[in-house]
Amino acid sequence: MEEKDISRAVIKRLPRYYRYLGELMEDGVERISSNELSGRMKVTASQIRQDLNNFGGFGQQGYGYNVKYLHSEIAKILGLDRTHNMIIVGAGNLGQALANYTQFEKQGFKIVGIFDVNPVMRGVSVRGIEIRMIDELPEFVKNNHVEIATLTLPKAKALDMAKLLVDVGVKAIWNFAHTDLNLFMPDDVIVENVHLSESLMRLSYNLSRFEKDHLQE
Amino acid sequence: MEEKDISRAVIKRLPRYYRYLGELMEDGVERISSNELSGRMKVTASQIRQDLNNFGGFGQQGYGYNVKYLHSEIAKILGLDRTHNMIIVGAGNLGQALANYTQFEKQGFKIVGIFDVNPVMRGVSVRGIEIRMIDELPEFVKNNHVEIATLTLPKAKALDMAKLLVDVGVKAIWNFAHTDLNLFMPDDVIVENVHLSESLMRLSYNLSRFEKDHLQE
Repeated sequence: MEEKDISRAVIKRLPRYYRYLGELMEDGVERISSNELSGRMKVTASQIRQDLNNFGGFGQQGYGYNVKYLHSEIAKILGLDRTHNMIIVGAGNLGQALANYTQFEKQGFKIVGIFDVNPVMRGVSVRGIEIRMIDELPEFVKNNHVEIATLTLPKAKALDMAKLLVDVGVKAIWNFAHTDLNLFMPDDVIVENVHLSESLMRLSYNLSRFEKDHLQE
Repeated sequence: MEEKDISRAVIKRLPRYYRYLGELMEDGVERISSNELSGRMKVTASQIRQDLNNFGGFGQQGYGYNVKYLHSEIAKILGLDRTHNMIIVGAGNLGQALANYTQFEKQGFKIVGIFDVNPVMRGVSVRGIEIRMIDELPEFVKNNHVEIATLTLPKAKALDMAKLLVDVGVKAIWNFAHTDLNLFMPDDVIVENVHLSESLMRLSYNLSRFEKDHLQE
């Protein structure tokens, strides 16, 4: 495949294409036209063609897209064609929920360790993965080629922990703490924030707006 | 406050302003200039002024913004000035983690019930909230003015459950299932999707891209 700059907007849409193509594969669909995919995804066919043209000409007139091929090409772009070792830091409810979620592993994100600061958690296992204390973290990260740390700690502890993680060689942080860690990290550290409260606020905004519109009718 | 159309881009940024203003209040800060806020949020001061001008003239030259007032005005816009009753449907790990998370309640999202389809969950309590079976759901929604349902069910069960929820009067769905429920819901139902896998894929993309750039240096 030719190297090419792909716009951020397209990149943002790729995981969704990947999910739909995966579902088509599960359903045994081998090829699909942009029109059919448009009907499923509620995106215009021309948008789909434009987006997928970024990855070279694997859509063919009268044939459509080869589902499996397109799925694997998008996987490569998203870095899903190899395994990423991941740890979870913060073994509270959310940390344990994420550890129990097997879907991530199917996509190549392998949870190799869980860490916490609370001594009562020492030795407890989640899905066969032992919870370790933070003092074991530096060596563990080195010995297990850990690339990604999922941070499910309270806001007050998140920044110091993130700095420690980066110091010991973690390259990316999946941050669930309610703070914009990316503002405090070196440029070469990837931070992806998941702010659940903000998602709920957008829902609440839409709910309020709808009720207002409804009252005015 | 004057009614005014506020762009989607501004609305998307509001929860972040709300969070920073809340932190300033916690720190006892009473007023802040757009320049100071710009330094904290890493957004340009002119962007901040432009965004906040949407809500009328509560920024004053030489004074800055009244933190508490601005916080409460944004709360009104986001619908956070009143309580929303919420249920969680799917009492697995993620559902229980969300039920245990007290922050939502502080923002006015009150978890009044938890539901599951698995009979072994019947009567189990999470943070004092009893897990109920789905057959109790219709009456519960009516009697408890439930507006929002958090859906933490596997993909295969999510759509049918969403339809049931809407039928019994739920107005908004906070969807954690890996499916675009909004495509199948009536227009007057608010759906906010949280696709954790897609967030992790964006992280993975950035990680791959960084490594590639790094290798080419």
